[in-house]
Amino acid sequence: MNRRGRLITLEGGEGAGKSTLLAGLHDHLLQRGVRLLQVREPGGTDLGEAIRSIVLDPSHPHISAESELLLMFAARAQLVRERMLPALDAGQWVLCDRYVDASYAYQGGGRGQPQERIAELERWACAGLKPDLTLLLDLSVSTGRARAAGRGAADRIETEADAFFERVRQTYRERAEAEPERFRVIDASQSPDKVLQAAVAAVAHLFEVDT
Amino acid sequence: MNRRGRLITLEGGEGAGKSTLLAGLHDHLLQRGVRLLQVREPGGTDLGEAIRSIVLDPSHPHISAESELLLMFAARAQLVRERMLPALDAGQWVLCDRYVDASYAYQGGGRGQPQERIAELERWACAGLKPDLTLLLDLSVSTGRARAAGRGAADRIETEADAFFERVRQTYRERAEAEPERFRVIDASQSPDKVLQAAVAAVAHLFEVDT
Repeated sequence: MNRRGRLITLEGGEGAGKSTLLAGLHDHLLQRGVRLLQVREPGGTDLGEAIRSIVLDPSHPHISAESELLLMFAARAQLVRERMLPALDAGQWVLCDRYVDASYAYQGGGRGQPQERIAELERWACAGLKPDLTLLLDLSVSTGRARAAGRGAADRIETEADAFFERVRQTYRERAEAEPERFRVIDASQSPDKVLQAAVAAVAHLFEVDT
Repeated sequence: MNRRGRLITLEGGEGAGKSTLLAGLHDHLLQRGVRLLQVREPGGTDLGEAIRSIVLDPSHPHISAESELLLMFAARAQLVRERMLPALDAGQWVLCDRYVDASYAYQGGGRGQPQERIAELERWACAGLKPDLTLLLDLSVSTGRARAAGRGAADRIETEADAFFERVRQTYRERAEAEPERFRVIDASQSPDKVLQAAVAAVAHLFEVDT
């Protein structure tokens, strides 16, 4: 990327500790003097939050896999153009709670939408914006679901069966293997401190790269 | 199509008289003994109506062209799978207020999204479902807007400039020229009775085709 800012995305299944890591990483980056925009997917814009409320609503149980994929990219296309690109162009770093890899994992691996279909959407809907670093919090499905179970009401996607989340995890891991330069896989069964430490080490490299 | 039912779509710009024709055509088909499902786009399902309320809401003025296109197809993918295909398979006819041609006209011609991008979405999002007959209500932009002005508050798309609607009309006409077998262009400056008469004549051919 020739932008001045850096794009860091966080990926992982249910209960992997994304929210805890996001908070820790946010504080760390601010302490290092980074001007930071933190956003989440789906969401991050008025349009995206409206889409989020539809797509995660358990009262829409029969959303087709095709519609779900299109809705995720509709929210993403808006987020990229309205907030992420302007921030990066202005030199801010962007910390994003899920991004395109989540569509490959959930709508691709999980729902069976073809990878090539997702790649085609990525090409035009995301305006070519790729993460500089993707942190993948990897955790067994059973451990993740046990952790997530304590949180209260599950959203529409969280109510899927274990086999769904096994495919999600597998797809994430395959993507990480295919792009080792961009991905850093973090063992999310470690303590939150250890997870943050691993993320901070990965992020450190982004300060060394020429802008 | 090898389905037992027939798919009739209605297209046209603002103020062209679609609603009046829909009502007349609906009555005509019922009188001929057709079992009929009437739907509208975007909408026609719980998901689609939720998407409609987002995409036509004037309080979302900055929806990107890419997001608008993806939202229209998200609603359409759901409508095709949840209602249109099951109805057609059960022998019902489907009368649809706008369908894929509207995306070529509004998101393509109007907003400049590439036709090939829309064609690719059509291929997988619509499960191959093509109309048996498309009635295009053709009307000059100035006449259409003058008629539509009497209706009260405009939705987000209706607030576009005349040049936008000229491109919409042009794209509709080009599509009709390219597929004369499927399209019937009706001069919408005629009286509602004449418009209905032309539509009824076009629909009559659908009864003659072998199922």
